[in-house]
Amino acid sequence: MLGVRALFGIGLLVTSRGGSVLTHTGACAHVASNIYSKDLAHRQACTMANTIKYLGQEEAQHIDEELFNEYSFSVDQLMELAGLSCATAVSKGYPLQSLLKSPPRVLVICGPGNNGGDGLVCARHLKLFGYAPSVLYPKRPNKQLFQNLTTQCEKMDISFLTELPEWSQLFITVSVTQLCFPFGLFIFILKDEARVEHGCPDGFQPDMLISLTAPKKAANHFKGRYHFLGGRFVPPALEKKFQLNLPPYPDTDCVYQLN
Amino acid sequence: MLGVRALFGIGLLVTSRGGSVLTHTGACAHVASNIYSKDLAHRQACTMANTIKYLGQEEAQHIDEELFNEYSFSVDQLMELAGLSCATAVSKGYPLQSLLKSPPRVLVICGPGNNGGDGLVCARHLKLFGYAPSVLYPKRPNKQLFQNLTTQCEKMDISFLTELPEWSQLFITVSVTQLCFPFGLFIFILKDEARVEHGCPDGFQPDMLISLTAPKKAANHFKGRYHFLGGRFVPPALEKKFQLNLPPYPDTDCVYQLN
Repeated sequence: MLGVRALFGIGLLVTSRGGSVLTHTGACAHVASNIYSKDLAHRQACTMANTIKYLGQEEAQHIDEELFNEYSFSVDQLMELAGLSCATAVSKGYPLQSLLKSPPRVLVICGPGNNGGDGLVCARHLKLFGYAPSVLYPKRPNKQLFQNLTTQCEKMDISFLTELPEWSQLFITVSVTQLCFPFGLFIFILKDEARVEHGCPDGFQPDMLISLTAPKKAANHFKGRYHFLGGRFVPPALEKKFQLNLPPYPDTDCVYQLN
Repeated sequence: MLGVRALFGIGLLVTSRGGSVLTHTGACAHVASNIYSKDLAHRQACTMANTIKYLGQEEAQHIDEELFNEYSFSVDQLMELAGLSCATAVSKGYPLQSLLKSPPRVLVICGPGNNGGDGLVCARHLKLFGYAPSVLYPKRPNKQLFQNLTTQCEKMDISFLTELPEWSQLFITVSVTQLCFPFGLFIFILKDEARVEHGCPDGFQPDMLISLTAPKKAANHFKGRYHFLGGRFVPPALEKKFQLNLPPYPDTDCVYQLN
């Protein structure tokens, strides 16, 4: 069993390069515009989003521990669902049809922890959704699960970059790094644990935030367009125990737009 | 690593008790009615569905083996996606809003093999979707994965029955059994491997068939209303190698309606 830290405690951040995205409606209108049956649930969510609990780091870790130790989930299972949520949120925020450039490139930057694993799963599902993901995975842990996730991506013709290109600005994993980067579309950024409670002190503002399991306190600082909740696997009793007050996911959706 | 046999080789069958289901539209119209953007893809699929390859048992096993041995997928990963597909297909075929009886009961009958594991995952996601699943799992394998899947269900207040009730007719796992059963809504039936190529010789006709990974030859005998393809995880190179000619899943959907 892998360590539970940081598997679902952080979330993913996405920043877009505006010129590549054709249309962006207001956040609440965006998801609701497609499906009438989701409209009500989404509007309810826009209203009730303020009541959702925003977790501190310690509480997020306790929830992860219960998922693994009490509910006997495996990392493989929940990482698969978390990564699928992230790919789905990206698809909702930046639909293929809205992208001007072809191929619809996405760079997924993966750190060495479990969040990096979520990123690898996300990249694989993005590929199946029709995107053209590439992965930057500079520090690869020596664990079978991560090696397997890497193999799955490689065998699906997802390219792994060996270095970051020029002219872009990113945060990756544990350290804050300014980087330059030529990919056209948007960038996944995995936050470091230190920011869970305090947000991004340097004022970086991503375009999308995907909170896995439940939002973290840092999400209060989020000013971007899209805030999604993902990881639809929280048992009702666990939600009640930690008073998460999660919103109702519509239908069979694996993500929920919070803003 | 668990054995690969029968993980995605069979599919799930669902039979409904008509009185509990409020509305059923024509098969092709059903999914397309919700979302305009899916309409085109779905109509294309209805046209091209005949060109999809229907697998024999040996070929299905080879595909499973490649997924695990060449692509390094774990059983946990693919079982999670397969079970999620099954729950999603059930939700599309029998939406909560269409059900007259409350609670919306579903019985999931799980055999001792990997298909039984798919059923346990399906039950868990159905619970999260708002259904009231129960599980009949008479022969439980002594493997950690299946024990964990059982724990996940039990901890989510999914009841496990110790015996089948009266007055219903089902097939379960390896043997053909006539059973009687009082649950109100619909029944999951896990087919035995011997039927993969030959269909159901005794003429049982389920209402829904969910083919995982790709349809099997037995699906040619299917006369029910809903035939779904599930398990959206097949790498493009694998699909090409086995000439599966899978239809394009719409958007981020994890199921595809074939009829």
